[in-house]
Amino acid sequence: MASTLVYDVVIVGAGPAGLLAATWMARTGVKTLIIEKRASQSRVGRADGLEGRTLEILDSFGLASQIWKEANQTIEISIWCDLSDGSLHRHRVSPNTEPGWSRFGESTLAQSRIEEHLLTLIESSSSVEIRRGTVPKSMDYNFSTNDETCHPIKLTFSNANEDPQILRKYEYQEDSDSSMSDASHPRSLSLDSTYSEIDDEIYAKYVIGCDGAHSWVRQQLGLTLEGESVDEYWGVLDLIPVTSFPDIRKRCILKRRNGTLMLIPREQSMVRVYFQIPNAIAIEYKKQPCPNVLLQIVQLIMQPYSFRTSQIDWSTVYQAGQGMNVSMQDAYNLGWKLASVIHGVTTPEILKTYHEERHPVAERLMNLDKRLCQGMRSSVDAYNATDDIRHSHKQALSEENTLAAGVAVSYAANKVVAPICTQDPVVQAPCQARKASISKRLQVGSRIPSDVLLNHYDAQRWELHDMLPSTGQWNLVVFGGDISNKAQLTQVSHLSEWLHRSDSPFRQLRSRRVGLMMESVNAVLIHSAPRKEIEFLDIPEIFRPYSENFGYSYCGVFADNVSYDGHGGKVYETFGIDPRGCMALVRPDQHVAFLGALEEVHELDRFIASFLK
Amino acid sequence: MASTLVYDVVIVGAGPAGLLAATWMARTGVKTLIIEKRASQSRVGRADGLEGRTLEILDSFGLASQIWKEANQTIEISIWCDLSDGSLHRHRVSPNTEPGWSRFGESTLAQSRIEEHLLTLIESSSSVEIRRGTVPKSMDYNFSTNDETCHPIKLTFSNANEDPQILRKYEYQEDSDSSMSDASHPRSLSLDSTYSEIDDEIYAKYVIGCDGAHSWVRQQLGLTLEGESVDEYWGVLDLIPVTSFPDIRKRCILKRRNGTLMLIPREQSMVRVYFQIPNAIAIEYKKQPCPNVLLQIVQLIMQPYSFRTSQIDWSTVYQAGQGMNVSMQDAYNLGWKLASVIHGVTTPEILKTYHEERHPVAERLMNLDKRLCQGMRSSVDAYNATDDIRHSHKQALSEENTLAAGVAVSYAANKVVAPICTQDPVVQAPCQARKASISKRLQVGSRIPSDVLLNHYDAQRWELHDMLPSTGQWNLVVFGGDISNKAQLTQVSHLSEWLHRSDSPFRQLRSRRVGLMMESVNAVLIHSAPRKEIEFLDIPEIFRPYSENFGYSYCGVFADNVSYDGHGGKVYETFGIDPRGCMALVRPDQHVAFLGALEEVHELDRFIASFLK
Ligand SMILES: Cc1cc2nc3c(=O)[nH]c(=O)nc-3n(C[C@H](O)[C@H](O)[C@H](O)COP(=O)(O)OP(=O)(O)OC[C@H]3O[C@@H](n4cnc5c(N)ncnc54)[C@H](O)[C@@H]3O)c2cc1C
Ligand SMILES: Cc1cc2nc3c(=O)[nH]c(=O)nc-3n(C[C@H](O)[C@H](O)[C@H](O)COP(=O)(O)OP(=O)(O)OC[C@H]3O[C@@H](n4cnc5c(N)ncnc54)[C@H](O)[C@@H]3O)c2cc1C
Repeated sequence: MASTLVYDVVIVGAGPAGLLAATWMARTGVKTLIIEKRASQSRVGRADGLEGRTLEILDSFGLASQIWKEANQTIEISIWCDLSDGSLHRHRVSPNTEPGWSRFGESTLAQSRIEEHLLTLIESSSSVEIRRGTVPKSMDYNFSTNDETCHPIKLTFSNANEDPQILRKYEYQEDSDSSMSDASHPRSLSLDSTYSEIDDEIYAKYVIGCDGAHSWVRQQLGLTLEGESVDEYWGVLDLIPVTSFPDIRKRCILKRRNGTLMLIPREQSMVRVYFQIPNAIAIEYKKQPCPNVLLQIVQLIMQPYSFRTSQIDWSTVYQAGQGMNVSMQDAYNLGWKLASVIHGVTTPEILKTYHEERHPVAERLMNLDKRLCQGMRSSVDAYNATDDIRHSHKQALSEENTLAAGVAVSYAANKVVAPICTQDPVVQAPCQARKASISKRLQVGSRIPSDVLLNHYDAQRWELHDMLPSTGQWNLVVFGGDISNKAQLTQVSHLSEWLHRSDSPFRQLRSRRVGLMMESVNAVLIHSAPRKEIEFLDIPEIFRPYSENFGYSYCGVFADNVSYDGHGGKVYETFGIDPRGCMALVRPDQHVAFLGALEEVHELDRFIASFLK
Repeated sequence: MASTLVYDVVIVGAGPAGLLAATWMARTGVKTLIIEKRASQSRVGRADGLEGRTLEILDSFGLASQIWKEANQTIEISIWCDLSDGSLHRHRVSPNTEPGWSRFGESTLAQSRIEEHLLTLIESSSSVEIRRGTVPKSMDYNFSTNDETCHPIKLTFSNANEDPQILRKYEYQEDSDSSMSDASHPRSLSLDSTYSEIDDEIYAKYVIGCDGAHSWVRQQLGLTLEGESVDEYWGVLDLIPVTSFPDIRKRCILKRRNGTLMLIPREQSMVRVYFQIPNAIAIEYKKQPCPNVLLQIVQLIMQPYSFRTSQIDWSTVYQAGQGMNVSMQDAYNLGWKLASVIHGVTTPEILKTYHEERHPVAERLMNLDKRLCQGMRSSVDAYNATDDIRHSHKQALSEENTLAAGVAVSYAANKVVAPICTQDPVVQAPCQARKASISKRLQVGSRIPSDVLLNHYDAQRWELHDMLPSTGQWNLVVFGGDISNKAQLTQVSHLSEWLHRSDSPFRQLRSRRVGLMMESVNAVLIHSAPRKEIEFLDIPEIFRPYSENFGYSYCGVFADNVSYDGHGGKVYETFGIDPRGCMALVRPDQHVAFLGALEEVHELDRFIASFLK
């Protein structure tokens, strides 16, 4: 146990949200303590769906390739309905994710595996500690002082009200959350060695409540849970099916007179089944979990296809909708802001943008969940008869792929999102129209999309997102256009010199050290000239920083050229970049904060200066 | 230390060759002991180039994605020459690897990292043990008995003649190989904990000599080293350069009046420099290694560009050519054969094919090395003046990319490569011509190429090579053609039934268990029909094996269709597969052993029967 009892951040809860927040703290070197009630991570059940944006986020921490390999990719969705004679019939098979949004489609992997990957990263950092089997007992705060270096929040802890003996006996820890009740067959469970008696007083600058639906932290703040709770139960089974059903490796929705069922193919030949169950059965199950009762319901809905299993891996009855992806995306939004305030880079005001940005997302998600459930619940006759219901369900499924997946989320103007139309005193053009012509697919407030580019120096293929890893660093992505054209190169050189001048806000931001990173803003040039026509010394200096020990950096210039084996060369076209180029200031979470023409240097200055501390 | 002193295989030497052989033994569950002279793996220097085929091999063991991420990909080669006025001039920039051969181009990574990845895999297996700091003392054998279960080779060992104290002091172990002498700055070196006194007697079925150029095992067998040794020295430096040279991140050859130099960009901003040095300097260096003398030579050749470094990571003077890739490819060829003989799947006769297949490759490589050196050594005036020399050098560089890279290697007919033209008693056609029309790019004796396919059931993208992991298993890859056409489907179904009959050699091979695998031949169907037109029950049973506990297998059928996001759908076209289809029996090392029309079932039977034990 640490000797010091002062932390910058205390995170309560080590679920997906808490672990993602901790991942940011680990990456940016913020002194952090995570408190988790459970003595060990649960290995089975719970969420299993990873949306495109969540994978992009994991990728930005270097975790996606491993997770992607383990996960099952859900490429297709197949809809089955009863015909009027009651026979089961395949209605249509279509792509499960809309192509073009993210290079990662939807995929499935046990929530516990995702948590383990995050934990591995967190545990490799010296700035984050985890205490398991611990709950907070009290939280007091005194904000009367203005001194930001002090730690105004006092927390005390106690052992979680769980006897480790009992834990060992059942080898499983029941979730105290009343909305679910699990019968599980954990593959392996070990009690964490850090489990110990503690009764410390701990001081913190910030506390993040990631303690789930029944949050203790929220209670302490006198806040109440928003949103209606749905009074409808779903059964959930994880198993390896032995079945004659032909589409078992596709995501399927079966809408039948005797119930609605969803199949989700998982990693390692597993399948997750969600299905409607009568409330009476749900209540019975909660008293005495009997997975076979659930299996029988599934078998009825699957008829005439056989559907057996030699082992049910996990089962539960369950009341609510999605959550893991959005909760991780929430934490991703919050983490860098907190780290940059703690490191003194940005003004604490930017913390307000967390609520401004994520609350509307949560509202839209709850609304979407309702519509999805409605589509699933609607009687098969109504579904078949009315185009309306079917259309609205289809629409909801598609929004699930863009909005809920997080790739289509866009934030409105705030402290760290420049207003789309600011009057530009230099260029004096009607800027709303001009911004539109700068780029069709780059949007202020949205995450920057990714695509293939070639490193200017060695022709290696990069994804644009690979240039924007989650390190707490901002990035100025300069689309310099065809710099083999002299006028265009001059424009980019001017920008480079402007940014380089000693009193530029860009340089001020650059010299702030965020956590483990060298500089807190980086400049990247993406040009559209033929690579071989641009000589090293032509490249404006800001894009090839020099160091005495390591020479020039060769990771700052990229060409929108086709590779020798036929990839790439489409960024300017698909992003719809104006030939005169443009620049995008990208936040540490890959969202575009500012978008401007290359000459809008004053606007850029003003915007950066407005959030610098 | 193990209690039993009986092993199926003893491998002497844990360099790339020994480790790759051990990887096969680990994968196939063969009881193996590796003996290595060094107390610990050396962390710096030696080979750094990974060719396409080597990466494919590593990929087949599941190691490539990690290695690929760590390595630096060498996309371009840039040739620089003196102009007649003595000024340095870029002659041309071209792709470093010929596209179309392998999805992996050439890349560079420290030999030690490659060894570490192999070691991690080996150490995760319970069938392979490693003893370090140990050398064989004697090797006796008695082959008088015919009993294959006995262990006719007796080995004794002793501690390597190296004082661990001294090792610790220098933290570096000099290679006893007289052709090189290294001054290194190891990043971290630890003495292996298994270092201990041993004087056991060990009995083995087979011994593999992987103990390098001065092999003790070879000496014991009274064999001598073949091939001429070159009397020419190269200096080698690993460093992070601080330079104004513009092409530093490309592979470069500089042919100048004051010497020839090769730059190889490496992982983590490092660069490897090879350069000609006078014999006198080499001999001086061997007496007293002074890396700065080597650096000065480089600086002279690099003029007028500046070339400094803050630290030389490794330096040596070095006499010979390539070796790591071919030595790993040799071991890859041998390993599965040995495992399958030990497991009783195939007749011991197939072991002879190792020499038959790999000796010609070694000869061609030595010849190529000579031509490469000649091209490098040729005076710059001769090089510039005669098209001949330049052309032959260019030719040699290109062969390096195909032949030396291993992707273009093809084995002649032998016990495990069917003759191209066997008289087919059923079809009675002039088969030489017919074989040519079956497929233009599949070739008996060559490795099967890879390309993108879609899993029939869930539309996930697979590389063809992903279906052929190195497990010791053979694969019958059936190109079934457009099976939405009834006649074509009937043809494939006939084949399926034929293979399934109880006395088929295919079924006999299938029921042999190789190591950890369930079956030692697998059947894969690649069809060209539109996926959605083929129903589950249409698919011939041999491609969807059923098990009581796990249901049907969904990894045996693939479609040559374009994915929703535009990949794949080109295998039939690029492989030039006849619309009537064909079948390729692929060996455990991904080389095509047999190629036939779908109806050539008797030929297939005869071929399999000929090597079955
Ligand atoms: C059957 C099932 C299926 C689901 N399927 C999906 C799906 O497909 N897609 C999806 O996106 N989501 C899904 N979800 C929801 C998903 O699991 C949750 O939304 C997600 O786990 C929420 O993450 P979180 O970190 O916010 O909260 P939680 O995962 O609930 O984590 C909270 C953590 O805080 C700890 N904790 C609670 N109170 C305290 C305290 N006082 N002190 C210390 N620690 C405390 C808890 O032990 C827990 O580890 C599913 C959930 C279930 C149960
Ligand atoms: C500077 C340099 C650059 C190179 N560059 C390249 C390149 O770019 N590309 C390329 O393909 N190759 C290159 N090579 C060659 C490459 O390193 C060797 O070809 C390769 O290591 C050969 O692998 P191996 O396993 O056959 O032998 P080795 O790597 O020599 O391994 C033999 C092992 O056996 C051990 N051993 C020896 N004798 C005994 C004994 N009696 N008992 C027990 N153990 C013993 C040794 O300690 C050693 O670990 C380079 C080599 C050097 C030195």
